Amino acid sequence: MQIDIKSPYLIFLGDEPEETHAKTGLGIAHWRPELCAGQYRLPGSGVDLGLPEMTPAQARAAGAQTMIWGVAGVGGTIPGHWVATLFEAVDAGLDICAGTHSSLTEVPGLAEAAAIKAVALIDVRSPPPDLPVGTGAKRSGKRLLAMGTDCVVGKKYTALAIAKEMKDRGWNADFRATGQTGIMIAGGGIPIDAVVSDFVSGAAEILSPDNDADHWDVIEGQGSLFHPGYAAVTLGLLHGSQPDAFVVCHAAGRKYVEAFPECLLPDIPTLIEQTIVCGRVTNANIRCAGVSVNTSAMDADERESLLSELSELTGLPCVDPVATGVGPIVDYLDENF
Amino acid sequence: MQIDIKSPYLIFLGDEPEETHAKTGLGIAHWRPELCAGQYRLPGSGVDLGLPEMTPAQARAAGAQTMIWGVAGVGGTIPGHWVATLFEAVDAGLDICAGTHSSLTEVPGLAEAAAIKAVALIDVRSPPPDLPVGTGAKRSGKRLLAMGTDCVVGKKYTALAIAKEMKDRGWNADFRATGQTGIMIAGGGIPIDAVVSDFVSGAAEILSPDNDADHWDVIEGQGSLFHPGYAAVTLGLLHGSQPDAFVVCHAAGRKYVEAFPECLLPDIPTLIEQTIVCGRVTNANIRCAGVSVNTSAMDADERESLLSELSELTGLPCVDPVATGVGPIVDYLDENF
Repeated sequence: MQIDIKSPYLIFLGDEPEETHAKTGLGIAHWRPELCAGQYRLPGSGVDLGLPEMTPAQARAAGAQTMIWGVAGVGGTIPGHWVATLFEAVDAGLDICAGTHSSLTEVPGLAEAAAIKAVALIDVRSPPPDLPVGTGAKRSGKRLLAMGTDCVVGKKYTALAIAKEMKDRGWNADFRATGQTGIMIAGGGIPIDAVVSDFVSGAAEILSPDNDADHWDVIEGQGSLFHPGYAAVTLGLLHGSQPDAFVVCHAAGRKYVEAFPECLLPDIPTLIEQTIVCGRVTNANIRCAGVSVNTSAMDADERESLLSELSELTGLPCVDPVATGVGPIVDYLDENF
Repeated sequence: MQIDIKSPYLIFLGDEPEETHAKTGLGIAHWRPELCAGQYRLPGSGVDLGLPEMTPAQARAAGAQTMIWGVAGVGGTIPGHWVATLFEAVDAGLDICAGTHSSLTEVPGLAEAAAIKAVALIDVRSPPPDLPVGTGAKRSGKRLLAMGTDCVVGKKYTALAIAKEMKDRGWNADFRATGQTGIMIAGGGIPIDAVVSDFVSGAAEILSPDNDADHWDVIEGQGSLFHPGYAAVTLGLLHGSQPDAFVVCHAAGRKYVEAFPECLLPDIPTLIEQTIVCGRVTNANIRCAGVSVNTSAMDADERESLLSELSELTGLPCVDPVATGVGPIVDYLDENF
């Protein structure tokens, strides 16, 4: 009952001139190079993932299964002059996976062409049907959830970095995706914020099923428990994930909820306490395992003093996932979970 | 952007033999007799709302605007021998409003007939389109939200009783519905648990818009903050409602979440505290205004001792909305809000 994307991927970048609009493609190439067969660009592209250049037909011949829409243009539209590529991919026998706002199935003729070729058009913004209501029943295996003080504070990055660090150490671990870019990186998942509210915790239960006792699911967080718009998503995800451990993610210097200048962010100890109060509904042993701060706007001294202050305040490893890496958090998990 | 049902109503009861399956019809006739033009029953019906008997044509001639599906059969299906009545209603020029699981639009030919007659088929399980993300922006007027220790603890009843008590005292007040029966009683609302989780708090904002400074919106609660399946709905509704006051609803003697025997219910002081922690995100002044307990399984002595114990524990008026009425809560609101 999850979205499932077949690899290897051909990453389609169109003629997008700006790297900032190619986050999805860059993210997949960075985190999962082993999934990427190649990239396909149109004349004028300003983005290079460093992957072999292939047309859809060449990619298919090389074993690719899915063409991934690797860019997010303004408004999430499908530019008219990129449509031919979609048909090219279908004709070559590739599934297409996209998170564009105007769905692939709205492109005239594409669904019919896909049906004839028996390839799938996968919309990573659409949750699977028939999700259940959450039950809170205990599942086997271990789980970690990224919790944010706000949106856009590095929850996906932190979860990906922790899952990678675990795997690099030979642990039995998986990243579990709850948002569209994460789903493409993971090759599957559920876009949790698009799930009807009655089924959010049930969807989160589906996302990290029973597993080996030593297995870690590292789950991408969404929103914030203190966000006036998105807290429902966050709480349902927390309940359904029933995490043993959580990591608080924060952007250094941010004081107010992004785009909501009247809403103060919680301080980190408050968020830890509230996450434990809420998380105990489905896991009596939930504990915080660290803090992950985006300090990209700070110099090294500022960063070091902020992280050591936070460590003193919380008694936990506090890292910048880019500047310092998440090793200390995985060490802490190793010793305490 | 809310569901809007035109009154007066003709309540359709089919040949339903059991009153327990006619909760919707009974609820509307009890709480909103002024909306009800009449009832329509098929031979064999065992339910009587005490309203004038009318066919759809007679009801329309008497000014009725909408035929309400007043029963909930097993599985929420539409019995085959009731379908003719749906066409009768459409032919008479009545809108039809239902919360059946199989939608009215799935009845072959009904949507086409409704289009020809320019009447509406209203599904109270379907939220309106284009709901916004919640912003938390402060709205004028006063709001009260019913918060439950669990599902099925009398949140709708309590909210309806408080709104009625306020109106009986001449206050400027409205009941705001978030579930399908409530929506039919209110003549409008949003089925909040069917809203995509990203938009739950936004939907709740739409539900109780800016109003007069002395106006009370009394909002039907859903789920519970400590429910493993439905807490996302509850938190989004709390944030979007930005209530000044909340009333805790509880079923006396219940210890575990209904149908989730491993989940202990929160005690009432814990729920009050957690509601305040969560509610402060959008209303810094949120306070509890009382406790409403279903004590129908108790005798008078047990009830009195439970309610006075709870009053001592919380320092707030504690009532059974049926046995004692909600007057003490409205007194408390009068003195403190």
